[in-house]
Amino acid sequence: MANLITLTTDFGDSQGYVGIMKGVMACINSNVKFIDIAHDIPSHDIFHGAFVLKTVYGYFPNGTVHLGVVDPGVGGSRRAIAVRTDRYYFVGPDNGLFTYIYETHEFDAREITETKYTLGVDSTTFDGRDVFAPVASYLSLGVSIEQFGQEISDPVRLDIYKPEYGEGYIRGHVIHIDHFGNLITDIERGESEKVMDFDDVRIRAGGFSIETVSGAYSAGSPGEVVCVWGSHGHLEVAVSQGRAETLMEGFGRGSEILVQAKR
Amino acid sequence: MANLITLTTDFGDSQGYVGIMKGVMACINSNVKFIDIAHDIPSHDIFHGAFVLKTVYGYFPNGTVHLGVVDPGVGGSRRAIAVRTDRYYFVGPDNGLFTYIYETHEFDAREITETKYTLGVDSTTFDGRDVFAPVASYLSLGVSIEQFGQEISDPVRLDIYKPEYGEGYIRGHVIHIDHFGNLITDIERGESEKVMDFDDVRIRAGGFSIETVSGAYSAGSPGEVVCVWGSHGHLEVAVSQGRAETLMEGFGRGSEILVQAKR
Amino acid sequence: MANLITLTTDFGDSQGYVGIMKGVMACINSNVKFIDIAHDIPSHDIFHGAFVLKTVYGYFPNGTVHLGVVDPGVGGSRRAIAVRTDRYYFVGPDNGLFTYIYETHEFDAREITETKYTLGVDSTTFDGRDVFAPVASYLSLGVSIEQFGQEISDPVRLDIYKPEYGEGYIRGHVIHIDHFGNLITDIERGESEKVMDFDDVRIRAGGFSIETVSGAYSAGSPGEVVCVWGSHGHLEVAVSQGRAETLMEGFGRGSEILVQAKR
Repeated sequence: MANLITLTTDFGDSQGYVGIMKGVMACINSNVKFIDIAHDIPSHDIFHGAFVLKTVYGYFPNGTVHLGVVDPGVGGSRRAIAVRTDRYYFVGPDNGLFTYIYETHEFDAREITETKYTLGVDSTTFDGRDVFAPVASYLSLGVSIEQFGQEISDPVRLDIYKPEYGEGYIRGHVIHIDHFGNLITDIERGESEKVMDFDDVRIRAGGFSIETVSGAYSAGSPGEVVCVWGSHGHLEVAVSQGRAETLMEGFGRGSEILVQAKR
Repeated sequence: MANLITLTTDFGDSQGYVGIMKGVMACINSNVKFIDIAHDIPSHDIFHGAFVLKTVYGYFPNGTVHLGVVDPGVGGSRRAIAVRTDRYYFVGPDNGLFTYIYETHEFDAREITETKYTLGVDSTTFDGRDVFAPVASYLSLGVSIEQFGQEISDPVRLDIYKPEYGEGYIRGHVIHIDHFGNLITDIERGESEKVMDFDDVRIRAGGFSIETVSGAYSAGSPGEVVCVWGSHGHLEVAVSQGRAETLMEGFGRGSEILVQAKR
Repeated sequence: MANLITLTTDFGDSQGYVGIMKGVMACINSNVKFIDIAHDIPSHDIFHGAFVLKTVYGYFPNGTVHLGVVDPGVGGSRRAIAVRTDRYYFVGPDNGLFTYIYETHEFDAREITETKYTLGVDSTTFDGRDVFAPVASYLSLGVSIEQFGQEISDPVRLDIYKPEYGEGYIRGHVIHIDHFGNLITDIERGESEKVMDFDDVRIRAGGFSIETVSGAYSAGSPGEVVCVWGSHGHLEVAVSQGRAETLMEGFGRGSEILVQAKR
């Protein structure tokens, strides 16, 4: 499945912006195939977009082009970039949307400056259509990333949370709230289980004390706060048959969670 | 159009869950084609999902794989199943999501236990990605349903409403509320017209009395409650140029509707 | 990329209506490819749908079939139509949804009456499934538009706003509110710059006075009202890092905007 392009945006489904981008790409590569990742990213929420991309990109076939547009700075001075890793391409604004990619992969990032591959439109408000879509489509056709512009060594990175590993504790943070209202933290299973036995912990989160990591959201009685290793490998705070986001008002992105060894 | 897979979920469009499933499937079958049915099913509302699937599956080409994930019990003891009927395949949790299929078709249902066809991921919270998506994709490749596990004779069925046919009346129930706020009942045209002349009925619904079955939602004056045979063949209560769901507050899923012969 | 069909509807993503239409089309043309334009058009808002189609259709390859269903009059007396322009086809209800197409292109419009190309379903409430989808799919297969019915010369046109060009001023109107809350007016760049020097204007909108047309939404300080030439070439009123729709309550579709030459 070459010619595969995924799309992640905050464009919603009421305006046709995503459709326009697909039309532009279909005109350039008639064999292109699209897979929508998410279009209801909260408006201008780059952190949300970056987290979604982190959890999604690795499930696609080699050569997939990941197009991301969460772009509050469009028309300003932020750069447009194309990024190549060992398996994928990423195209979008240089505003940190690909931060998690930079953290875990070798990459070649290019500032998109070559106008041969962009639409010569007299607009500064829709780079998704005019710059990112055509570049993504040319990448899917096999145009080399070197063609789009000079390499840059300093793509913008978001100031993302990272857990603090201490003596007998891990202090983490909520970094994402998902569709079901679950609170996803920066405590990742792989790293954390190396330093702590999660069979014997107490977790403090937003005034609640949770005594175990459960195997499922449906563990515990309805309305009970539970902790679960989520599907992306992050520790999550959830409410059995409810929404943690609602129950734990005021406990949201950036809030601290403390995992303590019981002994 | 072999290789066709439809997707029906409560995953929304803000998290990338559906995109992940498509990535997994595209890695297994590079020729797969996806058609989205609905992703804004109300969270965990199996009844809503079951009704949507009932109204949709039959419009697809033979051999289509229908993947459904509305799965409040993920990680618990509910089984994962693959179901074959004469024309289609269905893959999802064994929680009643396919109830209407069982009601009207011969079927072969299998509990998915063969790990050769699922992702060996250390997660119990996203079977859509780890179990249902790969099984659906292998089915679209032609893998026989027998390969996925043993046949089961007792797939879970929802306790769905059915109308009561009495002397000169039919007592039905609201079973679904659609996007336009129309209230859809369990009274189906085919069955009902055999026992009642709908040209001469009085319908009582939520304190309203409706004297005729109209030919269109736009019949009647604005704000008037009308009854219509909806596109799925069910009797619907609607409001001309309005939302029945809003006007008839308190009259919702499970509420009774009475159709009386006038003579 | 022949066989391309776009879809623009107010069907949302919770009911499966769009999926049904795609199933119907896939049964007729197994090579069809779909691109979704928008499905969260506000219910029954033909003006919104018409504007979205105006901004989208031209970005697609020649021969694309644009299927539009915003159809409050379904089941009533409004006609179903298929329209051909030099590059595209349009299929939908004859209620003005294609008004902007008629304004700018030669066209051949046909009332769809030939039942050979529609589903013979006993329903009057879902022409998207029963009429528009099959006709769109047959068009994508190469069936000539003449086959669907007689030519009509008077397709319904919406009463759309147009700006008034006066001595030293242009009086326009808000015609659309987009996903980001930006207010889009009927003042189009091409026409307007011919008669006014936008480097030296004062713009009055909803009690605000804006002294310049900015190059980006992000111009100005947070919360400041700015004017921008939007991506579709229309003058837009926006709020830097905010929503104009919210800040300028009561200033909405139909409201006047005045552009005055400073000298």
